Amino acid sequence: MTVSPHSPRSPLDQPDTRRRGRRPAGEDTRRALLDAARQTFVEQGFDGATVRAIARSAGVDAAMVNHWFGGKEGLFAAAMEFPIDPAVLIEQLLAGGPDGLGDRIVRRFLSVWDTNRGGPLIALIRSASTHEESARMMREFITRVLFGRLTSALDVDRPDLRAALCGTQMSGLALVRYVIRLEPLASADVDTVAAAIGPTMQRYLTGPL
Amino acid sequence: MTVSPHSPRSPLDQPDTRRRGRRPAGEDTRRALLDAARQTFVEQGFDGATVRAIARSAGVDAAMVNHWFGGKEGLFAAAMEFPIDPAVLIEQLLAGGPDGLGDRIVRRFLSVWDTNRGGPLIALIRSASTHEESARMMREFITRVLFGRLTSALDVDRPDLRAALCGTQMSGLALVRYVIRLEPLASADVDTVAAAIGPTMQRYLTGPL
Repeated sequence: MTVSPHSPRSPLDQPDTRRRGRRPAGEDTRRALLDAARQTFVEQGFDGATVRAIARSAGVDAAMVNHWFGGKEGLFAAAMEFPIDPAVLIEQLLAGGPDGLGDRIVRRFLSVWDTNRGGPLIALIRSASTHEESARMMREFITRVLFGRLTSALDVDRPDLRAALCGTQMSGLALVRYVIRLEPLASADVDTVAAAIGPTMQRYLTGPL
Repeated sequence: MTVSPHSPRSPLDQPDTRRRGRRPAGEDTRRALLDAARQTFVEQGFDGATVRAIARSAGVDAAMVNHWFGGKEGLFAAAMEFPIDPAVLIEQLLAGGPDGLGDRIVRRFLSVWDTNRGGPLIALIRSASTHEESARMMREFITRVLFGRLTSALDVDRPDLRAALCGTQMSGLALVRYVIRLEPLASADVDTVAAAIGPTMQRYLTGPL
């Protein structure tokens, strides 16, 4: 069985397996939720969209959101084709302590992006430059789901500014490595990229600004 | 007269005045060169496109390129609607010495971008994600015209990697500040942005990687 409900481990180890192979019946529920979520998040934003409304629109029970996605953030991330449950990702990143956090973030993102050449994020960047809805989705993804949660958990000063700064560096890395494909960065190995950009992320998260 | 030929000072002090007001006859030559340059650079890249070929395509004398744009780099920058002659910009940035260079770069870019909300760069980012020609233009702009020339002039190790890293941070800043408009970075004052991102640029240019 290639489709499994939300678990704290499997999405990280096998980020994309849900999409391959045969599609069991449960996948229909999951897909209906994703379709409803995309529309509802675009129309109402992250705060405005309720799990109940999304489930109603999909014609399924609201408990299915927790079952398949672990909650609203997970559903949002999945709707944006982010292949990792962000709550699990953040928990794992923070588990190593604040030291070396920047390095671990760069390595983790590259491990995802390098397999899909920046895929959905690139589509979102393109879309964000013409559609306010996409810009809003990207804003809320950075602040509500990803870096904002990280800086909140770190108990640092100016958490919102730090989250936005993380957003500049990681979106710019995606742009240059996968869209512009500027050498030597486009084909640099993970160690090189982490050594160069890890300290930047570390300072944005925990250093003096 | 609002249109003036290339000079080391006026494009910096008045980056956009050439586009306003009446259009004297000389502007026809300038515009023909820009149109021919865009097409030739897209088709043949920065290295392949010769000043002679662009001038011929525009139906003007090759000396007009130096007259209006100061050379091939200046013409390329103008074709990409970069409002400053990059040779002059780099000379000015380097004149202050390597110390504080990152800070000066961030301030100078914001002074340009804040007046046009990232304008042409944003269009290029969007276009680069769908068109290889635009990706190539952006690559060559970063390496040949802007950061690559800066890192070459600095006599540092790994100049190409440093140029690409500068590209990640500055393109990501443009994306978050002007496209995604993520607060508090979108409306942060120049001092705040320079204090946060200047040290990153400084390290990418002159620090250990």
